[in-house]
Amino acid sequence: MFPSPLASTPEPPYYAVIFTSIKNEIASGYADMATEMELLASKQEGFLGVESARNEIGITVSYWASLEAIQNWKANTRHLQAQKQGREEWYTHYKIRICLVERDYGN
Amino acid sequence: MFPSPLASTPEPPYYAVIFTSIKNEIASGYADMATEMELLASKQEGFLGVESARNEIGITVSYWASLEAIQNWKANTRHLQAQKQGREEWYTHYKIRICLVERDYGN
Repeated sequence: MFPSPLASTPEPPYYAVIFTSIKNEIASGYADMATEMELLASKQEGFLGVESARNEIGITVSYWASLEAIQNWKANTRHLQAQKQGREEWYTHYKIRICLVERDYGN
Repeated sequence: MFPSPLASTPEPPYYAVIFTSIKNEIASGYADMATEMELLASKQEGFLGVESARNEIGITVSYWASLEAIQNWKANTRHLQAQKQGREEWYTHYKIRICLVERDYGN
């Protein structure tokens, strides 16, 4: 079997940030910023992986070693710009949920 | 602003089940079963909401009031059939993560 393209996370416990959103029909600059943010996130200390999909709604789940790592990423200067643009221009609705992953299984 | 099509969950803490998967190209019967399972899940005690999207990977996040509600849903007879068919026929990879939602925010 080929390596899984799903996020390869360590044994729990670790953290997940579930980011769900509804985009405007016109969301100029969104795709480039999404790509840039995914790359930038992956370079942060404590980053464990990310999974994304979008149809009517968009879901991005990022995985982190600690709450501190999540807070540092939230406060990243470039990421703050992206968050502001997201709130003001791109998303009609969004929700962020900070979660402790207690257990996982799969193949 | 129109009501949000994102899951309307109560104040944390509550639970999230993050289900990520890669489907086979041929996944006969998958779409009907996915629709059926989403409807059936929504009738279970302790169900709080669900969000789904699929491109290369599929992400379904369901929200639950308690671990007991999650365990009851996992043990549901019809759901057990769907899980078996998923493992044997539909998914090349899948992962399930059981999470405690500690905090959330959004609009």
